[in-house]
Amino acid sequence: MAWVRFFKGHGTENDFILLPDPDGTLKLTPGQVRALCDRRSGVGADGVLRVVRSAYAPADVETEGTEWFMDHRNADGSTAEMCGNGIRLFVRYLDEAGLMRGKQAAVATRAGVRQVTVGSGKLTVQMGSASAVSDVEVTVGGRTWPASGVLAPNPHAVVFVDDLADAGTLEATPEVSPASAFPDGVNVEFVTERGPGHIALRVFERGVGETRSCGTGACAAAWAWRRRSGEPTSPGAVRVDVPGGSLSVSERSDGTLELTGPAVLVAEGTIDPEWWEGLR
Amino acid sequence: MAWVRFFKGHGTENDFILLPDPDGTLKLTPGQVRALCDRRSGVGADGVLRVVRSAYAPADVETEGTEWFMDHRNADGSTAEMCGNGIRLFVRYLDEAGLMRGKQAAVATRAGVRQVTVGSGKLTVQMGSASAVSDVEVTVGGRTWPASGVLAPNPHAVVFVDDLADAGTLEATPEVSPASAFPDGVNVEFVTERGPGHIALRVFERGVGETRSCGTGACAAAWAWRRRSGEPTSPGAVRVDVPGGSLSVSERSDGTLELTGPAVLVAEGTIDPEWWEGLR
Repeated sequence: MAWVRFFKGHGTENDFILLPDPDGTLKLTPGQVRALCDRRSGVGADGVLRVVRSAYAPADVETEGTEWFMDHRNADGSTAEMCGNGIRLFVRYLDEAGLMRGKQAAVATRAGVRQVTVGSGKLTVQMGSASAVSDVEVTVGGRTWPASGVLAPNPHAVVFVDDLADAGTLEATPEVSPASAFPDGVNVEFVTERGPGHIALRVFERGVGETRSCGTGACAAAWAWRRRSGEPTSPGAVRVDVPGGSLSVSERSDGTLELTGPAVLVAEGTIDPEWWEGLR
Repeated sequence: MAWVRFFKGHGTENDFILLPDPDGTLKLTPGQVRALCDRRSGVGADGVLRVVRSAYAPADVETEGTEWFMDHRNADGSTAEMCGNGIRLFVRYLDEAGLMRGKQAAVATRAGVRQVTVGSGKLTVQMGSASAVSDVEVTVGGRTWPASGVLAPNPHAVVFVDDLADAGTLEATPEVSPASAFPDGVNVEFVTERGPGHIALRVFERGVGETRSCGTGACAAAWAWRRRSGEPTSPGAVRVDVPGGSLSVSERSDGTLELTGPAVLVAEGTIDPEWWEGLR
């Protein structure tokens, strides 16, 4: 069999295994994804990003104007839509591998086409716009706070706290009330203000737990903070510190949110063919 | 700079980054080890095994009769002595890379020379002998058990339980009484019998927490179980199931313990030179 090449890297410590597969010949099973992402018996990552020419994307993926499709899988083997940290790493790879024309790329994802720009050190992603949904209450460790419901476009409940430590250990899923507000679950961000145009957050991702970073969570938090602080149309970017690093979110006049942050390639290599063959 | 090559693999899910460095030219700092082992911002592993010709081992390492020195570092950057899971992976690499003469190797480690044999699928390590020290009591979640003190040669407290679930979540360090019995701390194994010559364990490693496997812990548990079951000189191997797989421990007539288990190479590659250069 052909050896499977991979790259490993991260965006604000949300880490991925990239699998270059330009001609879409790699049939990647959920079991292979789970085995690759296992942090002790595999390579280890939060997810897999298969790098495929758009011509070989599934028929239901919008690819107009794009050259590349980001086939994003979660560590549990399921398909994923978009990830603001993953797509920066995806485009970092395209750029370093000489697969881009210029410094801008339109990337096809399962959530639609996303524009990404390679800047000096950091990359900027057009994330789409956010919108408000009904507010809820979030309870953690016996304390209850009001929370802003935000779609970005996945669901978020943004809680403003005095101190990020108020959220405690975040080992259990925060209780959201009424639960009917988010029947498919919700990501919860605990947000505190650090200074003018500067916030910090911790995030509990639905089905995962507390993570080092969440791109849409940073967007939802910055969006909710702007509205809360009475500066919804302020032109400056909001700096959003996450446990795994620092992001910034700016809002264009048409409401589009732009997420800017780092993306780091750490290693490249090949998967052991004997090990790979033994997977199902 | 030269690109740094690496392999990743595991023995019963105790995982390592191997760094081939035959001529000992790689000056590996604790900061580089920590960065490599970080599971999100690096490659990710429980530790690093640098593969060095014995001629380039530190002067205080016994190398007589050996060709290779296993320079084992913990994920926190500190030097480590011996690891029954790591040394199998180390010899698996030597064998697959064509660096062995035959199927047996004497490997220099900071704990002395160890003999390793490559078998069909599995590898066997001569681990040295075990000895009894004073018994203690171990308390977890309000329950207290008597425990056998064993040096293998690092310290272990072996607790026999009816069910491995009795040890609970093992999130906190088990309390050992009297604490003066192990002033430098102790690894605690919770052991249950599965059938004739067959035990299973969970292990809490000092300074680490619950792990998927511990080679010396498997040896200490098998040794203590043989004596408890009244079959100290039984010739057969004891099968020891650990959370990350299955090991077996046999005892030679001279008291030497032999640990047999799998070792799996998962991937090989190179560390990104720009990332490596940015480390301290």
